Amino acid sequence: MTPQDTLATLATSLLDGSVKVIDCAAPLGPDTPLLKLPPELADDTPKIEIHQISRYGDRGPWWAWNWLKLGEHSGTHYDAPHHWITGKDYADGSVDTIDPQLFVAPANVIDCSAEAAENADFLLTAEGVKAWEAEHGEIKEGEWVLMRTDWDKFNGSEDSFLNADETGPHTPGPSPDCIEYLMEKKALGWGTQCIGTDAGMAAGFEPPFPAHNLLHKHNRYGLASLTNLDKLPAKGAIFVAAPLKIVAGTGSPIRALALVPAG
Amino acid sequence: MTPQDTLATLATSLLDGSVKVIDCAAPLGPDTPLLKLPPELADDTPKIEIHQISRYGDRGPWWAWNWLKLGEHSGTHYDAPHHWITGKDYADGSVDTIDPQLFVAPANVIDCSAEAAENADFLLTAEGVKAWEAEHGEIKEGEWVLMRTDWDKFNGSEDSFLNADETGPHTPGPSPDCIEYLMEKKALGWGTQCIGTDAGMAAGFEPPFPAHNLLHKHNRYGLASLTNLDKLPAKGAIFVAAPLKIVAGTGSPIRALALVPAG
Repeated sequence: MTPQDTLATLATSLLDGSVKVIDCAAPLGPDTPLLKLPPELADDTPKIEIHQISRYGDRGPWWAWNWLKLGEHSGTHYDAPHHWITGKDYADGSVDTIDPQLFVAPANVIDCSAEAAENADFLLTAEGVKAWEAEHGEIKEGEWVLMRTDWDKFNGSEDSFLNADETGPHTPGPSPDCIEYLMEKKALGWGTQCIGTDAGMAAGFEPPFPAHNLLHKHNRYGLASLTNLDKLPAKGAIFVAAPLKIVAGTGSPIRALALVPAG
Repeated sequence: MTPQDTLATLATSLLDGSVKVIDCAAPLGPDTPLLKLPPELADDTPKIEIHQISRYGDRGPWWAWNWLKLGEHSGTHYDAPHHWITGKDYADGSVDTIDPQLFVAPANVIDCSAEAAENADFLLTAEGVKAWEAEHGEIKEGEWVLMRTDWDKFNGSEDSFLNADETGPHTPGPSPDCIEYLMEKKALGWGTQCIGTDAGMAAGFEPPFPAHNLLHKHNRYGLASLTNLDKLPAKGAIFVAAPLKIVAGTGSPIRALALVPAG
């Protein structure tokens, strides 16, 4: 099949709805949950603000528009290699320098929703990924690996989403050996439905924050706060994750989308 | 062909490069050209600002990140119906309420680069669109219509990009009857390579700003400051234009992408 025919078939399938576009992004606004860091770091990303410039006639005669105060790593977002010290020297490690070919790629969706419901600190391990591959097929070079936890159901409340107590935040994520294994497989990157790519307790892992540390060390990418992964097949979805072209940006809010077969 | 097979073929084609992803967005930063309004309106969108939160060790121990001051209609961006008074009452007229199915759609690319090089005030008319259709095939319901002018070559300088003199800005765009015709055809929307969806002189048209007025009146969408349309075929590209899910947002900067056959 020629690429022309592939795209023509895709066009028809999008227009007749046999290929469906799933919205994998959470609302972006003042209520968007954000990471909380220990106060001694004084390093939090700011709350999102939406400021009206004008609205139909108060100043602009016919139009309405706003401006935003918006952290690069807010809401559903993309982590570029320059976000972490281990990836800081890659020439193509900022959102404006990454090869755009990599913004549209196949996705593997690993369903950990039952485990996460049982245990908020659930970690997906290399062994867990291998067991999933034995059932669903191998993860291939250049593909996303997305951890489905259905954590998006908590996205409307920062407290529930971060799930912190006196011992810290409790949210599921990857073990260090999980990310090591995915880097051996040359996966494109790793995505989650929680506030960041790492588990809530990952500050105490070795290395600390292994998803951040290892993904970006390998010039690979992270996705966080994804929604609606329960609407994706284990294999077969095409994932669109395209960061804004922020000059030297370390990440970006994204409107993540998945193309899936309907019905 | 099943949608599963369509997506599997697309996956293979993306990974082997026979389907290429074209970056249709301009860099987003302090030098991004922005619309200039008459001073009496006091209604300009602010210049983009990028503020460092921390960078590898000054405060955040291992990471770098920034926050942005960012207008919804800055750089390469998407106009939603709520941007204009004619579209303000559509329940699905803000970027967070539009059907995500519409964020991935076929594109018709009308090459007006020679005309725009000759005449900065060039207007594409309904007649011009019909002549293009006679050569390249009909524009169908649900498809983007993109006006190629190669104006992205001026994107690095606000002065060149806006091309204003004492009589106002001079940039190519659509005539009113062009947009009327596209709305009859039920096109998904209209995109340009200039600062906005309308021509520089469009304040004096009837109706004023016909692209804004008529597109949004019909609950349709606009794209502006697109880049690299010279790398797209007249027909056959799939265009990805996915606004951030800004709560009640009237538009959004986007990382516009096109899927095209390689070579």
